[in-house]
Amino acid sequence: MPGNAFGQAFRFTTWGESHGPSIGCVLDGVPPRIPLREADIQVWLDRRRPGQSRYTTQRKEPDRVQILSGVFEGVTTGTPISLVIENEDQRSKDYSEIKEKFRPGHADYSYWAKYGIRDYRGGGRSSARETALRVAAGAVARKVLGDTIRIRGALVQMGAHAVERDRWDWAQVEQNPFWCPDPQAAAAWAGYLDGVRKAGSSTGAVIEIVAEGVPPGLGEPVYDKLDADLAKAMMSINAVKGVEIGAGFAAAGLSGEDNADEMRAGNDGLRFLSNRAGGVLGGISTGQDVVVRFAVKPTSSILTPRKTVDVRGQDSEIVTKGRHDPCVGIRAVPVGEAMMAVVLADHLLRHRAQCPD
Amino acid sequence: MPGNAFGQAFRFTTWGESHGPSIGCVLDGVPPRIPLREADIQVWLDRRRPGQSRYTTQRKEPDRVQILSGVFEGVTTGTPISLVIENEDQRSKDYSEIKEKFRPGHADYSYWAKYGIRDYRGGGRSSARETALRVAAGAVARKVLGDTIRIRGALVQMGAHAVERDRWDWAQVEQNPFWCPDPQAAAAWAGYLDGVRKAGSSTGAVIEIVAEGVPPGLGEPVYDKLDADLAKAMMSINAVKGVEIGAGFAAAGLSGEDNADEMRAGNDGLRFLSNRAGGVLGGISTGQDVVVRFAVKPTSSILTPRKTVDVRGQDSEIVTKGRHDPCVGIRAVPVGEAMMAVVLADHLLRHRAQCPD
Amino acid sequence: MPGNAFGQAFRFTTWGESHGPSIGCVLDGVPPRIPLREADIQVWLDRRRPGQSRYTTQRKEPDRVQILSGVFEGVTTGTPISLVIENEDQRSKDYSEIKEKFRPGHADYSYWAKYGIRDYRGGGRSSARETALRVAAGAVARKVLGDTIRIRGALVQMGAHAVERDRWDWAQVEQNPFWCPDPQAAAAWAGYLDGVRKAGSSTGAVIEIVAEGVPPGLGEPVYDKLDADLAKAMMSINAVKGVEIGAGFAAAGLSGEDNADEMRAGNDGLRFLSNRAGGVLGGISTGQDVVVRFAVKPTSSILTPRKTVDVRGQDSEIVTKGRHDPCVGIRAVPVGEAMMAVVLADHLLRHRAQCPD
Amino acid sequence: MPGNAFGQAFRFTTWGESHGPSIGCVLDGVPPRIPLREADIQVWLDRRRPGQSRYTTQRKEPDRVQILSGVFEGVTTGTPISLVIENEDQRSKDYSEIKEKFRPGHADYSYWAKYGIRDYRGGGRSSARETALRVAAGAVARKVLGDTIRIRGALVQMGAHAVERDRWDWAQVEQNPFWCPDPQAAAAWAGYLDGVRKAGSSTGAVIEIVAEGVPPGLGEPVYDKLDADLAKAMMSINAVKGVEIGAGFAAAGLSGEDNADEMRAGNDGLRFLSNRAGGVLGGISTGQDVVVRFAVKPTSSILTPRKTVDVRGQDSEIVTKGRHDPCVGIRAVPVGEAMMAVVLADHLLRHRAQCPD
Repeated sequence: MPGNAFGQAFRFTTWGESHGPSIGCVLDGVPPRIPLREADIQVWLDRRRPGQSRYTTQRKEPDRVQILSGVFEGVTTGTPISLVIENEDQRSKDYSEIKEKFRPGHADYSYWAKYGIRDYRGGGRSSARETALRVAAGAVARKVLGDTIRIRGALVQMGAHAVERDRWDWAQVEQNPFWCPDPQAAAAWAGYLDGVRKAGSSTGAVIEIVAEGVPPGLGEPVYDKLDADLAKAMMSINAVKGVEIGAGFAAAGLSGEDNADEMRAGNDGLRFLSNRAGGVLGGISTGQDVVVRFAVKPTSSILTPRKTVDVRGQDSEIVTKGRHDPCVGIRAVPVGEAMMAVVLADHLLRHRAQCPD
Repeated sequence: MPGNAFGQAFRFTTWGESHGPSIGCVLDGVPPRIPLREADIQVWLDRRRPGQSRYTTQRKEPDRVQILSGVFEGVTTGTPISLVIENEDQRSKDYSEIKEKFRPGHADYSYWAKYGIRDYRGGGRSSARETALRVAAGAVARKVLGDTIRIRGALVQMGAHAVERDRWDWAQVEQNPFWCPDPQAAAAWAGYLDGVRKAGSSTGAVIEIVAEGVPPGLGEPVYDKLDADLAKAMMSINAVKGVEIGAGFAAAGLSGEDNADEMRAGNDGLRFLSNRAGGVLGGISTGQDVVVRFAVKPTSSILTPRKTVDVRGQDSEIVTKGRHDPCVGIRAVPVGEAMMAVVLADHLLRHRAQCPD
Repeated sequence: MPGNAFGQAFRFTTWGESHGPSIGCVLDGVPPRIPLREADIQVWLDRRRPGQSRYTTQRKEPDRVQILSGVFEGVTTGTPISLVIENEDQRSKDYSEIKEKFRPGHADYSYWAKYGIRDYRGGGRSSARETALRVAAGAVARKVLGDTIRIRGALVQMGAHAVERDRWDWAQVEQNPFWCPDPQAAAAWAGYLDGVRKAGSSTGAVIEIVAEGVPPGLGEPVYDKLDADLAKAMMSINAVKGVEIGAGFAAAGLSGEDNADEMRAGNDGLRFLSNRAGGVLGGISTGQDVVVRFAVKPTSSILTPRKTVDVRGQDSEIVTKGRHDPCVGIRAVPVGEAMMAVVLADHLLRHRAQCPD
Repeated sequence: MPGNAFGQAFRFTTWGESHGPSIGCVLDGVPPRIPLREADIQVWLDRRRPGQSRYTTQRKEPDRVQILSGVFEGVTTGTPISLVIENEDQRSKDYSEIKEKFRPGHADYSYWAKYGIRDYRGGGRSSARETALRVAAGAVARKVLGDTIRIRGALVQMGAHAVERDRWDWAQVEQNPFWCPDPQAAAAWAGYLDGVRKAGSSTGAVIEIVAEGVPPGLGEPVYDKLDADLAKAMMSINAVKGVEIGAGFAAAGLSGEDNADEMRAGNDGLRFLSNRAGGVLGGISTGQDVVVRFAVKPTSSILTPRKTVDVRGQDSEIVTKGRHDPCVGIRAVPVGEAMMAVVLADHLLRHRAQCPD
């Protein structure tokens, strides 16, 4: 009933705060005899790591993952896998300002209202630092899914500036600091984001995650639909305000003729002539690419003073100083990929419990 | 692990197919000593019932709910509440066409791929008929929430035609067959939808659900966030392709200054100067209105022949004859309200388990 | 979080009270394409049905099960299976006595203390009538397990009178009204129980359930051990006060030499030279017979007046009149078999989620 | 669905193997603002710690617990509490014998059958070392329960030698190395156990756990009964083969008159004239002491050679050398207390979710 775990058959629980000694994650239900080394996880953590360009926070965290259990002689044993990452950059800092005031757009007030206490150091549990553990869990999930399922993500909109889908090139995603599949958009974003950063402001983004090679049949009707679990997974990422599958909100403006994906016989079963469904019908995968997009709000850590209230209920103003991300959506790309991986791994295991063939 | 239940502390499981003898729902965890009569549930079912205007399917279902357990002498006992609704309109019909072919945009193929069998009569388990049970569960959830929390829904976009928010008037919602809060939009939609209906086509929609009076503190970080569970709840409704909270996808285009809701001292705690967050920060309610929108695709039951494949893998064409909804989004409004109610009831109970004050 | 469901992958929820219109059960997670007719369930319900000899309550219930969903054209579809049984023997009765007083040894007081309300008609939700649904769920579980796993139960002790294990003959179990494997014990019990019945008294019993053909590997360490889930399953049956596996409590008096089951190579893998473990080591099945015993207390519905308190807190006396079972343990045998079946089915599905080979 | 977590509202997950770098536990759902220091947990770990007398294994583990998250400025924050204990005594050892052979009475074979791999170092995940984490979780649970609920345990039988209940004195439990409440029995056990130890043999035991001050109303009918969850909790402890509540198996031999606990009006509600129910009726606490007993088998690590089979399926013999416990039941006393605490804490939170008054 408490909410710090995700998944049912492939299940992980995360723990830790932004400025505690470490953060970690326990994975339960991972199949046995899967080769797994720390490097298999590290490679994904390194993609998310902050401070890799001038466009992300300069917090220096090596984010070295350690495997403490569940792996023996290089393979999983089927018992819980405990992962831990030290918090190295706990710089001694003056928190007196945010200790007393609720930062607008942050979880300061809502945590305080819920628990009657909050760890005010850097957001505590509500910090995006927790997303490192999602990436680590996602790395293990990818091992469970195997090589036939490929998961990739891209930033498709920064502020009001969207990519041109005709120019989409997956190879470009690794070539710029924005995970942008459109080289012209990437170039334009660089200038735009420099402006945002210098103004001490921030901007939002839209991320798209695509999973290829997903077999048909994953998803549990009628509440644990594959798309419903994906919606929950993505919406649970810090700062996400919207999720859509396939055509998404645009489907509201389509006619039934345009929206329904027609089918033809294919070499290997059937094939669809379009993918407005985003790979899911009735909550169950169809074998097409599973396509999810989510919107990330601009971070509320900005240099402009904002009206707020302090813990004694007095009107006040606040400026969130120090390092910050002008576009937190950039770092959300590997996190979205990871959440896609854990949802698919969970449903793969759940599916074979009921339908073992 | 199977997926036909929703919620954790306030939990319900639904069963039944479109053309079986009946459908039903079992609610577990409902607090004791709450007055509950069948009429308390029926009133909400009547709002969802098809056939109430020329804009919804003409399937005639009285949808009479019966309480079979869990209520004694007019109040809940704390034990499971079993609700059942007879399927009366099981007209004998020729299913030979859809028995053999997969309807595009429907769950026919994905169910068949998952289970190796499907109940082809009217969609079986994947039919929107199941949503009657969501409405019934939502009626019980409203009783749990009490009178201080008010949940209302409206259709805010039909096809490409959105309401004008400056003209929003909740009283209008009950005055037209579309749950439209903007009388001018409602008038325009009537003509638009008649055209769609006569063409045998269909159109999508966007629905907005607002919950007022939600206390701060509901939601379980970091995976079972209130907004994450709302996203799952709404995405699990038939035909939904996108969900957003507060500013939603528009947040991607905002600056940090515009997005973060400022605060001032209020008479009763603090107040926010705007509500782009949609009443949720860090996954926990803030006391502001909780605002969710979701997009419904156009139904795939249309009169234009569509390319498909049959169960033997041969190319074919299909037309879905008979009754259909030109805009299934209309009937999704009461369903969305119900899902908001069950999510809030669940989190209310979960919250007081951990934080009993 | 509420407690009216059992199992995780093979999961069922029961509802209904002793004197409501009906009782029922919803099974979720049942694999598709399993042949299932009402008769497959009825055969097991008939074994549990009261009124079959003078040794069980004379309540007349045909206990006719109906399948309302989840089965199409004679096979399971993978969607929820709803089962319902009408309560036919709701004889109009004067409940004024038990309405006002708490029956000793019954759940009257504890339900009242928990919920502040109770359905006093025949025990309401706490009635053993609920166990009919366990038997129904167990019948479906047996279908999931298939023919290679055989589950049988026997009464091995009535009052202080135990069977002689050297005389154990499974064929005898069907030959007497006690499910007794020892014909001499059965003969002795007949006279003993007649005496108990005529005295308006009651007696306890011990039941043994044996599952043969269970494959090695079922069970989830370290909390959801197979034996831990069996303990919970059996202890959840009405009136059960103790559960043991294999040697059970007698293991406390054994030496390590006598307790550990030695192994030798066998034709089909290894074989054990004894089975004090009861088929479970470290919470995981070994391939030996899984052996569970549980103790059932004597029913508290007896003709001798007993001291009690009424709902106003006044001292009082009570006699529980009307039909009753002199040894409720007799009817617990099919219930224990059913709970063994559901635990094994659940763990079979759970196992193949993680370990698909 | 995987099985390394316990509880629903008060939920903890454990990880780690006997000979990995560390073991740990993550608690989720702990209420906020509870004072908690490492010393509050350490005091209970110290009671369980091996090597405190000649009657327990000489493995030297300081078992120093560290709190890594969820506590801020000395109080719980409501977010996950991560506890870790280093494994310091990982002596380099020759595992070649047990690597190749299955130890009778241990989980070696069943883990191997389930996972196709096992961590053979000291039992890996199946080692009783895991129970240190149960004790740690139990220490937090005691904080949640508060001072009005008191949980104590005692060894009531060693081998075939039971305590005399008339001599029961809780103060004695802390005065001997056996947690024995009967000083005469303790004296006798000392000699008996020396004999067992010197013979390289082992003996079983029965433990009794008593919780005083439990409010009436805890427990969730009909599957998550308080006694059913206690049965699961105790049976999940390593080497436990039987669990009973109140009169337990002896209830089978009682008459209905003797078994049902009569009631009289008391100063503070009602009082019971006896406690054969063990504080639970219908799965719900009555306000009486909750009394649970469980049987622990003799450890299978003994010096006598035993017949076994090796991983290649060949007949073999094995002797388990090195440190061992002649009566592992002794160290199970603090573990049983802890499991009582976590079950009660879980049900306390669950109860107030549904019944908040």
